[in-house]
Amino acid sequence: MDIYKNYLDNIREALTMSTAGNTLNESIDKSFKSEQIRLLADSAQANPMPSLMKLSSEWNLQPALNQKLGLHPDFEYLKKTLGFEEHYIHSMFIDIKRSTNLFKRYSPLVVAIITNTVQRAAIHTCMMFGGYVHRLHGDGTFVYFGGRNQTPKESIHRCLQAASLFSHFMKTDLRGLFEAHNIEPIYTRIGIDYGDDKHVIWTMAGVGEVSEVTTCSLHTSLAPKMQAHAEGNGIVVGDNILKLYPTEFYSPVCHRPGKEKFRYIFTDPDNNFYYTQHDFNWQKFLKASDKIVTNALTGEISIKPKQVLPSATTSALASIASTNRPYYDGEPTA
Amino acid sequence: MDIYKNYLDNIREALTMSTAGNTLNESIDKSFKSEQIRLLADSAQANPMPSLMKLSSEWNLQPALNQKLGLHPDFEYLKKTLGFEEHYIHSMFIDIKRSTNLFKRYSPLVVAIITNTVQRAAIHTCMMFGGYVHRLHGDGTFVYFGGRNQTPKESIHRCLQAASLFSHFMKTDLRGLFEAHNIEPIYTRIGIDYGDDKHVIWTMAGVGEVSEVTTCSLHTSLAPKMQAHAEGNGIVVGDNILKLYPTEFYSPVCHRPGKEKFRYIFTDPDNNFYYTQHDFNWQKFLKASDKIVTNALTGEISIKPKQVLPSATTSALASIASTNRPYYDGEPTA
Repeated sequence: MDIYKNYLDNIREALTMSTAGNTLNESIDKSFKSEQIRLLADSAQANPMPSLMKLSSEWNLQPALNQKLGLHPDFEYLKKTLGFEEHYIHSMFIDIKRSTNLFKRYSPLVVAIITNTVQRAAIHTCMMFGGYVHRLHGDGTFVYFGGRNQTPKESIHRCLQAASLFSHFMKTDLRGLFEAHNIEPIYTRIGIDYGDDKHVIWTMAGVGEVSEVTTCSLHTSLAPKMQAHAEGNGIVVGDNILKLYPTEFYSPVCHRPGKEKFRYIFTDPDNNFYYTQHDFNWQKFLKASDKIVTNALTGEISIKPKQVLPSATTSALASIASTNRPYYDGEPTA
Repeated sequence: MDIYKNYLDNIREALTMSTAGNTLNESIDKSFKSEQIRLLADSAQANPMPSLMKLSSEWNLQPALNQKLGLHPDFEYLKKTLGFEEHYIHSMFIDIKRSTNLFKRYSPLVVAIITNTVQRAAIHTCMMFGGYVHRLHGDGTFVYFGGRNQTPKESIHRCLQAASLFSHFMKTDLRGLFEAHNIEPIYTRIGIDYGDDKHVIWTMAGVGEVSEVTTCSLHTSLAPKMQAHAEGNGIVVGDNILKLYPTEFYSPVCHRPGKEKFRYIFTDPDNNFYYTQHDFNWQKFLKASDKIVTNALTGEISIKPKQVLPSATTSALASIASTNRPYYDGEPTA
């Protein structure tokens, strides 16, 4: 998808350079190294790269930039008070699988360019949809969606949009590039869960500056566990998400062949509590979006270009506005 | 073990309070809550709690305090230059298992007191032995040992000391307390690996302030994978550790019943590279230490009190000094 073009270009350049570099002499190798350092730095800028940033105006998003790890702006005061606050949150854990195999073919420097760029694509995608990047886990990423001035429904909708677009990038763009270089593709697994105000506390973990303001909740703990049950480039969500944001795109994980025993991600028989996990069909979710175009021949999807209204009288505009909602307005479509 | 007394006391108080609180009315419940907040804050201080801090003088340690997550002091300059540096490191991943079950019995606030205090014991133990706490992972912890002014041998010795003492705390002190409260014990699994200068690069991951200065290395990636093969309260280390720091306390993971197929944590047949993982017997390692006393009747171990020299003439002292090295001097004992 066009929005990931700059990220993909960086990875492509690193792979091409590295393949060529294998057969060259040391002085040429040095110039490759300085090019590699440039690539390493290129995607480290705080803001999304231009191809992704474009999405902001096209979908009328409100990106959450200027973030700092482990310090959600609504709860950072807890680092000083050392107290706690009860507040809902969506927890999303994005893991990248099979990246360790890259060390078989590439130097640590080239591996760093690839995995850092992939992680940066994930970080920036979440930022674009108002997510708060809480923690980096190796090449994985832990992200919160929600906060004091957002409703749980708004924020889960944006979370699922971010997760779906990034999964599409991994499954199509990045996989295509890896296959063209004859490399075993890396892939994501994503777990998402929601805990309401009564089941989530925010507090400081760690000590002194070796610390983060974080959530303690069954549902934050379950997100990485659900991730482990996702299929390659798949998304698994907890039952709470379904209740909050019902769509036609869920099916219990136990309906997937080989997963019959994994309906529940957590059981507490003494309290008669059985918590179901569900696959989220992000392909169908994206195709159902009015902001996505599906190519009738290939089935490929792309971002619908921003609608440009023809010059028109005010009354004509009013009639369009009454039937169309061309811009993203933060409300769930489902 | 005495050194963890303050941490254990906090957890005990939270458990006792919580059990009593279940049957009380709302106003008493509120006073419990303020006590719980005190407990939450009590162990959040930057420096190790007094019982652990005592170890510093008794073992002549040089604790590494004043740390900041994701910013190893020797490599933090890379956050500005966006370049990279090749430098050895020991990566240790400490995971806490079964803590999710605590939500079956306790409120998120009580779970936070328990898991935060356990994590703080881990953080402080590593700091005491000069480790650098790089990242918190839920209730797990990722720690580096080593740096520009330390040899790989010195730092792996200290890393194994920290890992062993903390594992002992989990397996004896904390387990005893949990069993006394009829709670299923939580336990650790630890993975440690070493990458040398040629196989580790340090660089910035993430973007802007959503970033950390971190390592990209096969051996950093393998530490959490080895952790997953450790038994309850066990430590698994990579082959590189054995070569660097040989002792009698290792045995290949595949010698453990049920683990016959898991000799290698990573294989790369094309390059004829097969990397073995080993159990590290921390119980034997601790008992072999001249700083630990084993009770002949119960087999329990404790920290040997600091040797107090009797008043003596200079020449008598000299003869003692020539045969005794009562203080930890940073050199491996094995």
